Amino acid sequence: MFIHNHLKVNKNHHLEICGCDAVELAKEYGTPLYVMDDDRLRDNMRIYKNAIDKYYDGKGSIHYASKALCNMYLCKTAQQEGLGLDVVSGGELYTAVKAGFDASEICFHGNNKTYDELCMAVENKVGRIIVDNSYELDTLNGICAEKGVKQSVIFRIKPGVDAHTHEFISTGQIDSKFGFAIETGEAYDIFKKAMSLENIDVKGIHCHIGSQIFDLEPFTKAAEVMIKLMADAKNDLGLVLTELDLGGGFGIKYTENDDPISYDAHIKSVSEVVKKLCNEYGVDLPFIYMEPGRSIVGDAGITLYTVGSVKDIPNVRKYVSIDGGMADNPRYIMYDALYDGVVANKADSDDLDTYTLCGKCCESGDIIIKEAHMQKCEAGDIVAVMSTGAYNFSMASNYNRIPRPAMITVSNGKSKLIVKRESYEDIIKNDVM
Amino acid sequence: MFIHNHLKVNKNHHLEICGCDAVELAKEYGTPLYVMDDDRLRDNMRIYKNAIDKYYDGKGSIHYASKALCNMYLCKTAQQEGLGLDVVSGGELYTAVKAGFDASEICFHGNNKTYDELCMAVENKVGRIIVDNSYELDTLNGICAEKGVKQSVIFRIKPGVDAHTHEFISTGQIDSKFGFAIETGEAYDIFKKAMSLENIDVKGIHCHIGSQIFDLEPFTKAAEVMIKLMADAKNDLGLVLTELDLGGGFGIKYTENDDPISYDAHIKSVSEVVKKLCNEYGVDLPFIYMEPGRSIVGDAGITLYTVGSVKDIPNVRKYVSIDGGMADNPRYIMYDALYDGVVANKADSDDLDTYTLCGKCCESGDIIIKEAHMQKCEAGDIVAVMSTGAYNFSMASNYNRIPRPAMITVSNGKSKLIVKRESYEDIIKNDVM
Repeated sequence: MFIHNHLKVNKNHHLEICGCDAVELAKEYGTPLYVMDDDRLRDNMRIYKNAIDKYYDGKGSIHYASKALCNMYLCKTAQQEGLGLDVVSGGELYTAVKAGFDASEICFHGNNKTYDELCMAVENKVGRIIVDNSYELDTLNGICAEKGVKQSVIFRIKPGVDAHTHEFISTGQIDSKFGFAIETGEAYDIFKKAMSLENIDVKGIHCHIGSQIFDLEPFTKAAEVMIKLMADAKNDLGLVLTELDLGGGFGIKYTENDDPISYDAHIKSVSEVVKKLCNEYGVDLPFIYMEPGRSIVGDAGITLYTVGSVKDIPNVRKYVSIDGGMADNPRYIMYDALYDGVVANKADSDDLDTYTLCGKCCESGDIIIKEAHMQKCEAGDIVAVMSTGAYNFSMASNYNRIPRPAMITVSNGKSKLIVKRESYEDIIKNDVM
Repeated sequence: MFIHNHLKVNKNHHLEICGCDAVELAKEYGTPLYVMDDDRLRDNMRIYKNAIDKYYDGKGSIHYASKALCNMYLCKTAQQEGLGLDVVSGGELYTAVKAGFDASEICFHGNNKTYDELCMAVENKVGRIIVDNSYELDTLNGICAEKGVKQSVIFRIKPGVDAHTHEFISTGQIDSKFGFAIETGEAYDIFKKAMSLENIDVKGIHCHIGSQIFDLEPFTKAAEVMIKLMADAKNDLGLVLTELDLGGGFGIKYTENDDPISYDAHIKSVSEVVKKLCNEYGVDLPFIYMEPGRSIVGDAGITLYTVGSVKDIPNVRKYVSIDGGMADNPRYIMYDALYDGVVANKADSDDLDTYTLCGKCCESGDIIIKEAHMQKCEAGDIVAVMSTGAYNFSMASNYNRIPRPAMITVSNGKSKLIVKRESYEDIIKNDVM
């Protein structure tokens, strides 16, 4: 029935998350409420970390892609678990730095970092800047020259691999705003340029082929393209690339129909493929980075809502309206994303029905689950939507001036607030009359 | 070339908005920057206000639908121009009250108002609550009984009219989370129930058939359904409904291909239709509310961005990356929305090209204009995206931890900050470690 093993139904027939009664959590913190299963979160981090240590002989690093969910608690947790961090903006970097994250273990990504963001990255001694384009390299070199420092960089490459996924989240193909193409000569051009710059230290190359991928093949294909490029750069340009950043994109279980790769098996396969290919192409084994985001936080997150009106339109549809919606989870309206829901206060009831779980925003597309098979619902029930850890909080808005929910972690029957609920006062704080 | 008459190109070849040089505005306030043309905003408000006064003999009111763009300045401006206000949440109501808006001129909409929101509305003596469902009516009556007050209400009705528009923003059909259907008997049931409640004063009925509609026919069809219902309620139930709220949904010009209805002509037609139908059905002329949102603020808004990297992928596409994106304007990724862009620092150049104007978020779908025909672009240019006044600021997120832009108004060559730019400190303000 449930996505993972920290969920159960207690003797009150309530959903329990890491030993915490979901209905009691809703009562204590209010709804909507983002709940982060701390045990699952750390399990996910450890599976990746242990796998890369084991299968790649400790010559790699797992960097948590914080765009999936970034707040100070998550940054602190990643550091505690021995992970590095990927950031994609000044705001994510700021959050990490304020959380005390070791900046040398941070990679800074993005297709259009601003001058201010690059300065901030250099000043904070970010470990690697993933350079996306030639304009950025010039800007960065200028900043480093002025500050008299040398910055380690990795170049974002388009491996030309189609990840068989939603168009919006498929990013490795040539028609992409991200990175340098190989076949057009862009990659070589940027390597040559970088080699001539005094304040730039070229460490390696990076690719990211997309998101929510369930198939190993695109990863191994991309790895081959990248390792061939490393061999070619060495042979043709005398450029020794010692680092390979293979990105993220591993699919997670949103509903029963999703069948994700075991992350352990995935890291094992990737490690084997990289070793084999390096041997074939005569390349020294690079240090590798892997950057999971969704697959670390996604299934560790659950959102709790309170049901308001239930509307039965005979022969058409039953609408269940909750006290949140597209403002806290825009993934249905953006991507037709699918979720599973459970009525937390009668989680083991077999008396099910099919509902459209919709939000309270003034918009017809404000839907969380279009076809939710759930326990029969009435006003006051608590609905738990599963696998909301990634791209919910991070994409939340104040649409309809709705304050963003609080976030808590739960572990061993205890809960802890990690993001305070927004207040109405927060909503107007920057308004000037 | 331009969407409306307050835009021109000055002697420096720069875009000028209400006499303010857009390039200078970008320099002074930074980018991304939401610019609100105050003259256009007030023109739009006055066109509606004057039309309803003229064609409906002063027996109607224009309520600005603040979900399109809500901040204290907008609320204050609507009040100054003699408009009422529609709010859809406690957050919008809070904003209006803090801006000093007269609550008796506020209608409170929404399919799932919470108990707290209903209390807040009653305590603030909101003029009308637009009741969406039976559960809400019970809750509201209970609150009013406890406080010893009587609340004026209007019922949201599904007129069953298809507004020929995008599925997500078409809301008048029977398969909708909003309101009461007529054909199922729901409308009569709620009328009868309300008539028996001591703390409820039934004033009228409301419908809203969708958004961005360019056609008068659905409005007149909906008006007919509503007036027939008024006649039937009087004849069958003895319930005299004295108010008719016809909602909003009038289309605006996003690109050259859009041909919106003249709002003056629209109000004239609606007024004539309502008078004619009331006469036919033997109903006293009701007080009418009209609720434009997008058509008041949409074309008065312009967003200014700074160009970073420009990426030419031969035979494929040219990407222009700006310093904003889906975090400040998610309408492309949500609705495939179309916009026009102009390079503000060479606004009259005929040297054009076709670009994909994309944002800085780590996501391929982060696009503002898929096919932008604009002046040739390079790093440092200022791009103005037109008609961004509605559903941009209001739907903005902190995706990728990007701070939300500032908003200014411009009028008569002067600019004024109305929403401060978010800081990184704002981004982490609710984080707890």
